[in-house]
Amino acid sequence: MSGELLFGIHSIDAALSNDPKNILELYFESDSHNARVKELSEKARELGLKPHARPREALDRMTGGARHQGAVARYRAPPPRAEKELYELVEQAGKDTLILVLDGVTDPHNLGACLRSAEAAGVTAVVVPKDKAAGITPTVRRASSGAADRVAFFAVTNLARTLKALKEGGVWLVGLAGESAQDFYQLDLKGPLGIVMGSEGEGMRRLTGEACDFLAKIPMRGGVESLNVSVATGVALFEALRQRA
Amino acid sequence: MSGELLFGIHSIDAALSNDPKNILELYFESDSHNARVKELSEKARELGLKPHARPREALDRMTGGARHQGAVARYRAPPPRAEKELYELVEQAGKDTLILVLDGVTDPHNLGACLRSAEAAGVTAVVVPKDKAAGITPTVRRASSGAADRVAFFAVTNLARTLKALKEGGVWLVGLAGESAQDFYQLDLKGPLGIVMGSEGEGMRRLTGEACDFLAKIPMRGGVESLNVSVATGVALFEALRQRA
Repeated sequence: MSGELLFGIHSIDAALSNDPKNILELYFESDSHNARVKELSEKARELGLKPHARPREALDRMTGGARHQGAVARYRAPPPRAEKELYELVEQAGKDTLILVLDGVTDPHNLGACLRSAEAAGVTAVVVPKDKAAGITPTVRRASSGAADRVAFFAVTNLARTLKALKEGGVWLVGLAGESAQDFYQLDLKGPLGIVMGSEGEGMRRLTGEACDFLAKIPMRGGVESLNVSVATGVALFEALRQRA
Repeated sequence: MSGELLFGIHSIDAALSNDPKNILELYFESDSHNARVKELSEKARELGLKPHARPREALDRMTGGARHQGAVARYRAPPPRAEKELYELVEQAGKDTLILVLDGVTDPHNLGACLRSAEAAGVTAVVVPKDKAAGITPTVRRASSGAADRVAFFAVTNLARTLKALKEGGVWLVGLAGESAQDFYQLDLKGPLGIVMGSEGEGMRRLTGEACDFLAKIPMRGGVESLNVSVATGVALFEALRQRA
C-alpha cells in the first residue's frame, strides 16, 4: 500500500471534506457501534469512494495499535514545500503576514494542536527546523484534525538563516520566553509578524532567541512555570488576531 | 501500596517542589540514562525522602505500560472537596472570582492541560460534572504538571444546579459556543466570572448552555471548525486575565 496513514474520525472526516481526491484507500471497522463511523462511510460513498469494511483487529494492525476509532485511510500527503515558496507567501500576504515558528516542539500531540491553532488563526505559514521538530506523522495529522495537510508547513534546514531572511523581508519576530520581563500584551502585534515558540522543557535555542526582535512573556499567576506549548501558542496567535482585527 | 499513582519527570518534579510530604513512595529507574532522573533522585534525597531504584520493567508494571520516563511515585492525593467550599471561595474572591467550568471534557490530556492553564491563570476554582468528565487520573495529573492537585477542583453531582447557585452568588457565566454570533472579545470579562466550556465533539449540554448569561465564540479564520478544547480554554482564560489586569 502506498500513501501516508491517516486515522481517527476527526482526521478522516476532515480529509473527506477537504481533500477526498487524495484518499487512496479507506477502511472502516466492520462491526463498529459508533454512529459517526457509519456516517463517515456514507459520506465517503456519496463522494464516489469505495470504503472497505475490515474487522477491528485488521485496523489495529494497520495503525500499529494506535487509537483509530474504527476509521483508517491511506492518503496522498502533499509533497514538502520548497523554502522559496515561504518568501513568496510572505510577499503575497504583505502586512497581513503571520508566521508561526516552532523551535523544537517534539511532542506530536503538541505539534498537531499547534498546527490546528495555526490554521484556525489563518496563519501565512508554519516554520520548523528540519532536525529538531517532530515531522508530520500520523499522530500529528490526527491531533491537528487534518490542519497538518492544509496549513503551509515548512521544515527548513537552517532555522537561524530562515529567520534572518524573514526579517530582511520585513517580518518582525517576537519570541515567547518565560524569563523575559516584557509583557506580550504590551507589544504592537500588527503588521508582518512572526511568533516564535521554543520547546517546553528547554525553551528556544540561543541562535533562535537572538534572531528575535523582541522576547516577551505571557504574564501568569499561580505556581506553574509555563503553559503547555500548544496552549501558549494559541494564546499568542489569538492575541495577535485580536489586535489585528 | 496505598496512595495514587504519579509518574513522569514533570509531575514528580512538581510534587517534590510543592508537596513532598504527600509523597509516600518514590521509584526511579535504576539504569536511567536521563540526567533529569538523576537530578530528581538527588532532589528527593535532599528533601529527606528515600527513593528506590528499580529496573525499567518494574516501573512499566506499576504504570501499566504508560510512559513514566523513569520516575514513579505513590502519592497521597488531596481528598475531594465539598461543594460548600466552592461558594466560600467565591465569596472570598469577590469581584476577582474566575471560575472555569468544563462540561464533558473527557480526554485526560485535555483535562490535564485545562487544569494547568487554569492554575497559570490563577482561577478561583475548576468545576466539572461528576458523571460526565474524566476524573483526576494519573494521566490527568501528568498532563497537568501537578496543577491537578493544586487547583481548587470540584466534581459536582448536578452541574445545572451548581451553575444556578453560582449565578445567585453574583457570578456571570459566559459559555463558549462556536455557533454563537457573539464575539467573545466584545464581552466585558471583568468582575465575578465563570467561563463555561463544552466537550469538543458535542459542545455543552442543553441545560448547561441555558444556564449561561451569554454564549460567545472565539472568531476564527481558516477551515477548521474549532480549536482543541484545552487551547480554547487557554485563549478564553487569558483574554479574561488581559481585560482584568
